[in-house]
Amino acid sequence: MEPIKSFLQKNDRFAQTAGIELLDIREGYAKARMTLRREHLNSVASGHGGAIFTLADFAFAAAVNSHGTISVAINANVSFIQATAEGDVLTAEARETALHTKLAVCAVTVTDQTGAIVASFQGTAYRKNRNLLPDGA
Amino acid sequence: MEPIKSFLQKNDRFAQTAGIELLDIREGYAKARMTLRREHLNSVASGHGGAIFTLADFAFAAAVNSHGTISVAINANVSFIQATAEGDVLTAEARETALHTKLAVCAVTVTDQTGAIVASFQGTAYRKNRNLLPDGA
Amino acid sequence: MEPIKSFLQKNDRFAQTAGIELLDIREGYAKARMTLRREHLNSVASGHGGAIFTLADFAFAAAVNSHGTISVAINANVSFIQATAEGDVLTAEARETALHTKLAVCAVTVTDQTGAIVASFQGTAYRKNRNLLPDGA
Amino acid sequence: MEPIKSFLQKNDRFAQTAGIELLDIREGYAKARMTLRREHLNSVASGHGGAIFTLADFAFAAAVNSHGTISVAINANVSFIQATAEGDVLTAEARETALHTKLAVCAVTVTDQTGAIVASFQGTAYRKNRNLLPDGA
Repeated sequence: MEPIKSFLQKNDRFAQTAGIELLDIREGYAKARMTLRREHLNSVASGHGGAIFTLADFAFAAAVNSHGTISVAINANVSFIQATAEGDVLTAEARETALHTKLAVCAVTVTDQTGAIVASFQGTAYRKNRNLLPDGA
Repeated sequence: MEPIKSFLQKNDRFAQTAGIELLDIREGYAKARMTLRREHLNSVASGHGGAIFTLADFAFAAAVNSHGTISVAINANVSFIQATAEGDVLTAEARETALHTKLAVCAVTVTDQTGAIVASFQGTAYRKNRNLLPDGA
Repeated sequence: MEPIKSFLQKNDRFAQTAGIELLDIREGYAKARMTLRREHLNSVASGHGGAIFTLADFAFAAAVNSHGTISVAINANVSFIQATAEGDVLTAEARETALHTKLAVCAVTVTDQTGAIVASFQGTAYRKNRNLLPDGA
Repeated sequence: MEPIKSFLQKNDRFAQTAGIELLDIREGYAKARMTLRREHLNSVASGHGGAIFTLADFAFAAAVNSHGTISVAINANVSFIQATAEGDVLTAEARETALHTKLAVCAVTVTDQTGAIVASFQGTAYRKNRNLLPDGA
């Protein structure tokens, strides 16, 4: 699983831009973390929905790509439960709840440093017949 | 509408980080733009779902806050229709489809420079009884 | 469009069970109606989310099947804006917002007899290469 | 929990119409079942999205109302993973993934008689300060 982890951490530019770290990846599971800095805030000084989505989406992408073949998101749904603030440490855990020939679904929970749930995310991906890692990787 | 536009453009840090520009805002409507740069890509070199979501979410936020009172997102749903690439110029247009005492819903369409639809987004917001702009603004 | 309309109205058993009438169908558009009877209510005597979803979903299905080839729903998202009651006459209007080779997206608005918006729905369908109507129909 | 179970089973008319049975309800959890009959089918003879949604939605409603106070759905998102057919026995299991003062979120999985996942559902509810059961119940 280490080559996939390195590949995603290194090549996912937007996750890097957002300061997201991929903590763990196993078959059908992934965990990622992001500390809310000033540049993650929205106009009312809460964590931006786009930043929280990006964290959840990256964990989702890692979980559905953990099988070694490329899966691309076709739908994502997120409910924001509780406001966040600068300094909060957010953790997203993604678990595949369905894995079919063509489709995979993940439930992702985003919690803060106290364990409180900040957002609940459901992602649906289309599974391609192409390897994620380039040949020889 | 100009003070609201300036306020959102200036104070939404994550939209700034992502290089998003608020082009237009009217009652129940907003339009925003983002050019896909290298830092917006995911690990398979397409535009990151999180970046596209952030663009749509910012247009959604502007549209539901156009009434001058604070609305916060409680749910967002996005379907990704077509892959994007570095250099694409993405435009999000948000239109309120429902406005109730407590809830507002927006449909947001994200198109590329050819007019092709890249993503379709539905956002639901909770409307607070608090002004968006600080007193005296 | 008449053969498609008749086919859907006749063969969609669950829409029939729910008392839904297909009023109109054009390329990328459909309109359906349902009067809330006692059997459509939930345990707090409002219109059941499942009944309202079924109405919106049927309009969605008609709109994406209006092209004559089979499209199947892969995702649907619904926001419930306002409670409904027995006797309300609900109308769902579905409009395709995106039509790609493999995917189609529809926005569906459900209104009551006063024109107030009851629910806002976004559906995503996968487009198959198979005709909806049997040969010779 | 028995009075809540009886109340929901007896008063949810649309779930009754659809032939849904509430099998189990505990704090933040519920399980319901529906056998796909001819009247649950859509126009291509698969289980109707509206029928499957109704099953998931009923399990969701039972789980979020298990605390004894009324919760109403504000958003639901469903991904359909695999087609179903007449005779299939579908089971929905709803688990609360987030419980906040005002909002609750449930993940619901719908499986068929072989255990294969048919649909994955995420529901978000608004929690009212009103008892579900009438006084004296």
